[in-house]
Amino acid sequence: MRLADKKVLSFVSDDFEDLELWYPILRLREEGATVYLAGEKANHTYIGKYGVPAESDFAFKDVKADDYDAVLVPGGWAPDKLRRYPEVLEFVRRMDEYEKPIGQICHAGWVLISADILKGRKVTSTPGIKDDMTNAGATWYDEAVVVDGHIVSSRRPPDLPPYVKEFANLLADQ
Amino acid sequence: MRLADKKVLSFVSDDFEDLELWYPILRLREEGATVYLAGEKANHTYIGKYGVPAESDFAFKDVKADDYDAVLVPGGWAPDKLRRYPEVLEFVRRMDEYEKPIGQICHAGWVLISADILKGRKVTSTPGIKDDMTNAGATWYDEAVVVDGHIVSSRRPPDLPPYVKEFANLLADQ
Amino acid sequence: MRLADKKVLSFVSDDFEDLELWYPILRLREEGATVYLAGEKANHTYIGKYGVPAESDFAFKDVKADDYDAVLVPGGWAPDKLRRYPEVLEFVRRMDEYEKPIGQICHAGWVLISADILKGRKVTSTPGIKDDMTNAGATWYDEAVVVDGHIVSSRRPPDLPPYVKEFANLLADQ
Amino acid sequence: MRLADKKVLSFVSDDFEDLELWYPILRLREEGATVYLAGEKANHTYIGKYGVPAESDFAFKDVKADDYDAVLVPGGWAPDKLRRYPEVLEFVRRMDEYEKPIGQICHAGWVLISADILKGRKVTSTPGIKDDMTNAGATWYDEAVVVDGHIVSSRRPPDLPPYVKEFANLLADQ
Amino acid sequence: MRLADKKVLSFVSDDFEDLELWYPILRLREEGATVYLAGEKANHTYIGKYGVPAESDFAFKDVKADDYDAVLVPGGWAPDKLRRYPEVLEFVRRMDEYEKPIGQICHAGWVLISADILKGRKVTSTPGIKDDMTNAGATWYDEAVVVDGHIVSSRRPPDLPPYVKEFANLLADQ
Amino acid sequence: MRLADKKVLSFVSDDFEDLELWYPILRLREEGATVYLAGEKANHTYIGKYGVPAESDFAFKDVKADDYDAVLVPGGWAPDKLRRYPEVLEFVRRMDEYEKPIGQICHAGWVLISADILKGRKVTSTPGIKDDMTNAGATWYDEAVVVDGHIVSSRRPPDLPPYVKEFANLLADQ
Repeated sequence: MRLADKKVLSFVSDDFEDLELWYPILRLREEGATVYLAGEKANHTYIGKYGVPAESDFAFKDVKADDYDAVLVPGGWAPDKLRRYPEVLEFVRRMDEYEKPIGQICHAGWVLISADILKGRKVTSTPGIKDDMTNAGATWYDEAVVVDGHIVSSRRPPDLPPYVKEFANLLADQ
Repeated sequence: MRLADKKVLSFVSDDFEDLELWYPILRLREEGATVYLAGEKANHTYIGKYGVPAESDFAFKDVKADDYDAVLVPGGWAPDKLRRYPEVLEFVRRMDEYEKPIGQICHAGWVLISADILKGRKVTSTPGIKDDMTNAGATWYDEAVVVDGHIVSSRRPPDLPPYVKEFANLLADQ
Repeated sequence: MRLADKKVLSFVSDDFEDLELWYPILRLREEGATVYLAGEKANHTYIGKYGVPAESDFAFKDVKADDYDAVLVPGGWAPDKLRRYPEVLEFVRRMDEYEKPIGQICHAGWVLISADILKGRKVTSTPGIKDDMTNAGATWYDEAVVVDGHIVSSRRPPDLPPYVKEFANLLADQ
Repeated sequence: MRLADKKVLSFVSDDFEDLELWYPILRLREEGATVYLAGEKANHTYIGKYGVPAESDFAFKDVKADDYDAVLVPGGWAPDKLRRYPEVLEFVRRMDEYEKPIGQICHAGWVLISADILKGRKVTSTPGIKDDMTNAGATWYDEAVVVDGHIVSSRRPPDLPPYVKEFANLLADQ
Repeated sequence: MRLADKKVLSFVSDDFEDLELWYPILRLREEGATVYLAGEKANHTYIGKYGVPAESDFAFKDVKADDYDAVLVPGGWAPDKLRRYPEVLEFVRRMDEYEKPIGQICHAGWVLISADILKGRKVTSTPGIKDDMTNAGATWYDEAVVVDGHIVSSRRPPDLPPYVKEFANLLADQ
Repeated sequence: MRLADKKVLSFVSDDFEDLELWYPILRLREEGATVYLAGEKANHTYIGKYGVPAESDFAFKDVKADDYDAVLVPGGWAPDKLRRYPEVLEFVRRMDEYEKPIGQICHAGWVLISADILKGRKVTSTPGIKDDMTNAGATWYDEAVVVDGHIVSSRRPPDLPPYVKEFANLLADQ
């Protein structure tokens, strides 16, 4: 399995978009990746926008970018909370410096805006935050998935198949 | 009653912050203002983030800025939807041109960002969207209420008392 | 601010009518009043009929009528519980003896019935408990707000603006 | 089966206490009684306080006291609505005149208060409405079940077994 | 009361069918039976499929078939969980050996299937699990209540009256 | 994409396990498969056990096994309903005759039991229905995924990655 030695972190907070959190995690595990979830608290059960639960493995303060090969940010309303934690923003900024894969979908872009890593980047997102993405310096495309270097972005749940395919390919090539 | 001849429009969509929608409406009515609600559909019951209902009087497409003295944008997740309607943005832009009072609280700033009327403005909002406000050209203050010309902004439910007081005063002085 | 030196207590219990609890509290704070919430337990989060939360500052057993200038009783199903606590009834009876403002709206009248302070009083309430009010010795009027001495009563959420206006005026005049 | 020729009506409205509505209906059917449900609308599914559904057979306006041998009023918040319908009160008053069995449990007493048939009666109910019952002219007892002539009353769900037993006996003796 | 010296156990787990759990318990209590509830944990509040609560008296591991005269298994989704506990299956098997009354309704048959006591038995159940009942060796009838020796079975909530009547008669005859 | 010419049907009914329905659908689409959903009604939105929505494309009566290359049965409580529809059972039986891939996970086995196609088969499932599977003639293994000819089975959500991998491989080899 081509991702057998890869370690991926997914951030989580209440009101995550249920499929946008879980599909990438399960899909990457299919290819052997080890995927952990980090929330404000460790071993806490967060509840998605629709009600699907997800338990965190670690607390934000206990994860370091150096230990991971890639990071995933889910959509839903969770990014509105995630962007308020300095540890989350610091983690994302480091992954950006290291040019490790960063996956964002739907409203996840808010986290990348607050990490201030979108200047000059090509991205997509839910059309709802297009203006915030553009104001943050990105160029926005209405496409199912946009890959710009190590940043992979997508619009919404029906785009999950091509989104995670591109993300997995990028991660495999690291 | 000093607002007896004033006509105010509040936008509404599902998942509005319950008190941020209702407190301003009821408070302005106390001073005689006529307050209508506009949603995507007329005579539709929208449900707040916590569950309080609110019925729209008009559809977005049937309200015109020329007919109102002021506009209110509630917080919650409703602004994420409201900012996607061209009629809402057009209405807000016109109110801005006419320099009529525009009230925004919490996440309502997203609508003003998409209406592109925040360049050079002094504002506040929930800290969660501070970066989006700043990227849109505004200067952000961590204060209960900020008044810059005809734009009144506030952070969150406990700030409602000073927020609506300033908004009502501004409206009375029109 | 004319209510800057006034201290008001609002009772709270689960299933309070969300706006009937919060509108008066926020509105009185606008004029400088200090408003506390008392529930069966202190520092407990009670949930309204629709879902809005409200945290109590004090427990019933720790509040004394002598320390407050006025009391508010919210509607919803909370009064059905509130009327069962001897401390709540004792508090209300004392406020009545002291002729300090007592605000009641919708189903809140049940608390005043059980405190046995309605004989000969003019009141209003939700029509649903009109018979209970009348049987308790009150005369019932179908008006948005009724003021009889220090007792201010109202029917339902749309009546909140005139209700709290009268209550605030009465409190200011104390 | 001793109740095979008996016809009983149970009133229903949203937020009925689930077991207080259903236990008597099922229990009387065990002995052969025909039990119908009447709500504001016919063939409408009402939802109990906890979520159990109950479909009405008839609308209030289509049922007549002359056609029934007994009537049941459930508890929960439903009685707060039921007491507002003149047809419900008229039905209950007629049953009282005819001295046919009237069963009430928990908050159901509000309906009998508004039907004004409690003067001089011995009753019980949830302690929450004891004062309303007393003010309506009844004498209140803290007992699992109280039978005064054709009126059978009870306090709460755990009292259902003796409550319906007494009600069934009374109905069988008619 | 003919069941005054009888002791009955009802199993409980989350998502029990609300009326299928409570009607038999209350009905047997009417005739004097002592009915206890056993769940995975003692003194834990389980919530029915629709939302009605039920508190357990004992934990599965603390109840013994020798101490009871009969056992009740409710329907809903609870049986899908109950059948996974060896203590529950052991209890049911013993009751079967002792030929003490076993009541099952709706989906409760899953528990008897896993206790492996249905070979050659005549039963009914929700039609949904008819095939599972038949594959377990039972003969299935589409009747409101089926009594085969000490096993009483029923289909669904409207069948509760004859179901519990037969069960009570059987228990009285023990 | 190796599944570009494959057409797959997934059955759906309320209370499906949210991830067990959606992960396979999205994952197969990644490889180009066309996946449709069939429910009792066409174009109806079904709601998962946790709350995720899923819209049906077709009604059961309008789909034919001849038109599809594979079928998926989700878990949750949906299979308890699905197994009651003769059209669903007929469809599954035909797929079995044609030896086209049949995917089942968790409680989905109930549908295969009622279609009577498990005799002599090697399968897995949620341990909850192990006895029903065995009674239906299957041999049960406690493994993440079991492939026996054209029948692929799995236990629960964490097994989704290997489950769908095997299912996709089988489908690709058809």
